[in-house]
Amino acid sequence: MIIDQFVARSVGHWRSMRSAHSLAFRQFEDVLSDIHIEPLAASDAEVGKYIETESIDSAQVVAPFRMTWEADSDWEPEDTSAVSKGSCILIPIPKTPSGGKLLRSVGYAEANPAVSTYHFLNDGTFILHTTYGQSVAEERIWFVSEHVRCRSSVLRTSEGSGVLQTSFASEVRRVSS
Amino acid sequence: MIIDQFVARSVGHWRSMRSAHSLAFRQFEDVLSDIHIEPLAASDAEVGKYIETESIDSAQVVAPFRMTWEADSDWEPEDTSAVSKGSCILIPIPKTPSGGKLLRSVGYAEANPAVSTYHFLNDGTFILHTTYGQSVAEERIWFVSEHVRCRSSVLRTSEGSGVLQTSFASEVRRVSS
Repeated sequence: MIIDQFVARSVGHWRSMRSAHSLAFRQFEDVLSDIHIEPLAASDAEVGKYIETESIDSAQVVAPFRMTWEADSDWEPEDTSAVSKGSCILIPIPKTPSGGKLLRSVGYAEANPAVSTYHFLNDGTFILHTTYGQSVAEERIWFVSEHVRCRSSVLRTSEGSGVLQTSFASEVRRVSS
Repeated sequence: MIIDQFVARSVGHWRSMRSAHSLAFRQFEDVLSDIHIEPLAASDAEVGKYIETESIDSAQVVAPFRMTWEADSDWEPEDTSAVSKGSCILIPIPKTPSGGKLLRSVGYAEANPAVSTYHFLNDGTFILHTTYGQSVAEERIWFVSEHVRCRSSVLRTSEGSGVLQTSFASEVRRVSS
């Protein structure tokens, strides 16, 4: 699978069930949320602004997209804090047919821009590695069917191999909207 | 990775955090449990008895093992039902270096013996497919480090592609015992 096919399959509106596991404390955190993934043009002004700061030529960009998430209000009616919603722009820069870099305007584990590397396994599973200041994340995304995908993450300390947290999300496409 | 290496890495005592997602009802179920994985000899009497019923020659068996699990009593002090603990024997029958069959004395989704097929992805991720009477399960197991492994499952109806349930377990080796 190449990145533009993967992004095309991911575009849409997803309902997510996500469980995070804090390994040291053996604590669970379960969250329902809505995720929107929409394609952007390589010529999009926000994409252009972001790659300029990274000194990347727009001709290298393939299938950029925006991801927006919001906690399900039925699930957490009391919690309307800014943490429960967000948006970022993701910009793939392929180096080979099956791998390359992914720029993110907001990182997953820390609220700063991040540069990740990605590749695909031989069954099409998408693997993303990101190094943040204090931690290293590996995410995996694989499609179970056209309308169901799974997403896991493992967060570890950047020094040593201590695993801090894992998470798993089941994402079901909202076909009706 | 070949199956005997995978089994050797899996042997030990693991503390598991497992989250199940019921997609239709958007319900979470979080469970703490202990898992023991111990190697068995290919000449083990129980292994021999089981492969005899499947008309398989013992020379085909590689790295059979027993898996025992028990819900963490601190987590569910009230629940001491038989469902919260169990044991099964797993018997790999490799067909190629990277794939083959796995016989299970007790299945994952239904409490009957099962014959699964397995293969490894190019990064060593173990993939297991099992067809039960009413459902089809795909499990994935991958090592995050020597002492941490992740395990996901997707359960779908055997007719059609409806996904019923997913689950994810974070398993941390108990090095001390």
